[in-house]
Amino acid sequence: MLPTDLPSDILERASRIKLAVFDVDGVLTDGRLWYAADGSELKAFHAHDGAGMKQLRAAGIEIAVITARTSHVVSMRMAELGIAHEYQGRTDKLVCFEHLLGALGLTHEQACYTGDDMVDLPPMLRAGLSIAPANAHPLVRERARWRTRLRGGEGAAREVCDLLLASQGKLVVPTVP
Amino acid sequence: MLPTDLPSDILERASRIKLAVFDVDGVLTDGRLWYAADGSELKAFHAHDGAGMKQLRAAGIEIAVITARTSHVVSMRMAELGIAHEYQGRTDKLVCFEHLLGALGLTHEQACYTGDDMVDLPPMLRAGLSIAPANAHPLVRERARWRTRLRGGEGAAREVCDLLLASQGKLVVPTVP
Amino acid sequence: MLPTDLPSDILERASRIKLAVFDVDGVLTDGRLWYAADGSELKAFHAHDGAGMKQLRAAGIEIAVITARTSHVVSMRMAELGIAHEYQGRTDKLVCFEHLLGALGLTHEQACYTGDDMVDLPPMLRAGLSIAPANAHPLVRERARWRTRLRGGEGAAREVCDLLLASQGKLVVPTVP
Amino acid sequence: MLPTDLPSDILERASRIKLAVFDVDGVLTDGRLWYAADGSELKAFHAHDGAGMKQLRAAGIEIAVITARTSHVVSMRMAELGIAHEYQGRTDKLVCFEHLLGALGLTHEQACYTGDDMVDLPPMLRAGLSIAPANAHPLVRERARWRTRLRGGEGAAREVCDLLLASQGKLVVPTVP
Repeated sequence: MLPTDLPSDILERASRIKLAVFDVDGVLTDGRLWYAADGSELKAFHAHDGAGMKQLRAAGIEIAVITARTSHVVSMRMAELGIAHEYQGRTDKLVCFEHLLGALGLTHEQACYTGDDMVDLPPMLRAGLSIAPANAHPLVRERARWRTRLRGGEGAAREVCDLLLASQGKLVVPTVP
Repeated sequence: MLPTDLPSDILERASRIKLAVFDVDGVLTDGRLWYAADGSELKAFHAHDGAGMKQLRAAGIEIAVITARTSHVVSMRMAELGIAHEYQGRTDKLVCFEHLLGALGLTHEQACYTGDDMVDLPPMLRAGLSIAPANAHPLVRERARWRTRLRGGEGAAREVCDLLLASQGKLVVPTVP
Repeated sequence: MLPTDLPSDILERASRIKLAVFDVDGVLTDGRLWYAADGSELKAFHAHDGAGMKQLRAAGIEIAVITARTSHVVSMRMAELGIAHEYQGRTDKLVCFEHLLGALGLTHEQACYTGDDMVDLPPMLRAGLSIAPANAHPLVRERARWRTRLRGGEGAAREVCDLLLASQGKLVVPTVP
Repeated sequence: MLPTDLPSDILERASRIKLAVFDVDGVLTDGRLWYAADGSELKAFHAHDGAGMKQLRAAGIEIAVITARTSHVVSMRMAELGIAHEYQGRTDKLVCFEHLLGALGLTHEQACYTGDDMVDLPPMLRAGLSIAPANAHPLVRERARWRTRLRGGEGAAREVCDLLLASQGKLVVPTVP
């Protein structure tokens, strides 16, 4: 996933991004909703995604999650990663997205939106860069401007982070000291 | 998964469906039965399936689940999705299916049945449309009238929902407002 | 998985089997060992395997599990399936296997053994039919007489059951009543 | 995975190894970080990896894990496998690696390092043999000297163990007694 592998229009769009919005289920997870017998839930996030999000933040790019469900484990993970823009229980994702842009003083062109189902399409179609993970619903995948190689919960979000960092010349690869 | 991709006889059968019956393990899940040390169980359902089932209900198509096992987490998930026709602990799936048709005043042609193992075959062979997920037992897969691209618990049920909605002109794709 | 798909020597060996022995981790599960924070464990078995094992028992074929680890959840699952021959904490699998054959009054030719790692090889090399799931260690896979299409915990054991039942003319497929 | 399948320079480097260092998330696991509702975590390790690590230790090769996260379940698994060199919460992996080499009186050439993300690159680039599992980040995979066929948590570490044992003539395959 080096800049040379990426279409120039995607790189150009990515170079303008100052806010990366992610859906949760199917994007930061593989879309499985786990139910335990006591009514509690479990979720699995990927280590690679977390590392990428920390690099994004260090590079000055804002991160937000907007999800239609409400889950305590999402809050725990977001707190661990230091992500303050966390919107849960929002099926009106476009309204939420527009509100966030206003609060941050950003334009649509400065935001990318990664989603995997119909409910994500309205903000995706408005964002400067729309991205679908490999496991996205076919109708979302075909409408997204870019598709990750990996599936949600298995590193798709990391690909988004790498794309943004690479396009802005901020992808750092360690070398022998 | 657009109407143009689907065989015309499948679309025609799907266009008549007013009741969609799903097996649980291997259809709404990947077939894994999770045991915790305290004897409790866990199950994972897919977010895409839940979204599709809500769209089915909004379009006036009834949904039922018939499973040979008995599980509290299945009840929790069905309650969350507002699915009232829930039959657990039923190995006599054909009897259960016929009873349900009678109660709803529907014919076999108005029902589709999605199953993945031998115990599902009797009602599948009677239903107007029988569907097997990609992970179904080979002898079930080859007897089903339609096979989903995805595996159970990974979006197979959503494909069923999309097929029914598309065949009835009710598949709604969001556009830019 | 019909008799016509199977090599004749495998079918002939399978037709003599009266005891099916299974390893647990990597054969009845995918080999993952789950640890919860309180020190307890979880395991996932597959619904298809359970259904096949019930059919084996109904056909008069004995089932045993021999595992090097010790796990309460294995006991729970075996009790649910009515499998009495359960040996846990046994790294001397050949001794255990020979003991079981003696107790049941069976010969090596009347037993099949499904395993996925080195520790299973000694009894596998002695059994009338040795089987490796798709995920077995390469050195075990190449020494097994038959290899399942599916991976452990995803239906590999069901393929073993189907093979034995089909070879003995006992595989029952439901038809329209 | 027999010696004949392996490039000679990899075998030569492997033949000198007396210490095998593993990252945890993405190497001994598939990289998923599981969160339960009560804030506790779960992890899944693979049975094949554990068996290989026990063989490594029996062959006199030291094993260490160095991970940036801190997890009680890692300690439980390491204790079960008898692995004493366990470093958690270490983002300065190179410092940790060099310290360990000093304590054991070993050179860089006598150590192999298996990692899957950027944070593992500094020690990987110094170790006599650097290995990446199939699921490693692309920039790590392309910089590693050897890549396993399997993914982390699904047997990648076992491939490392088999490589080291085979290169040193210590891979034991059971035969009929």
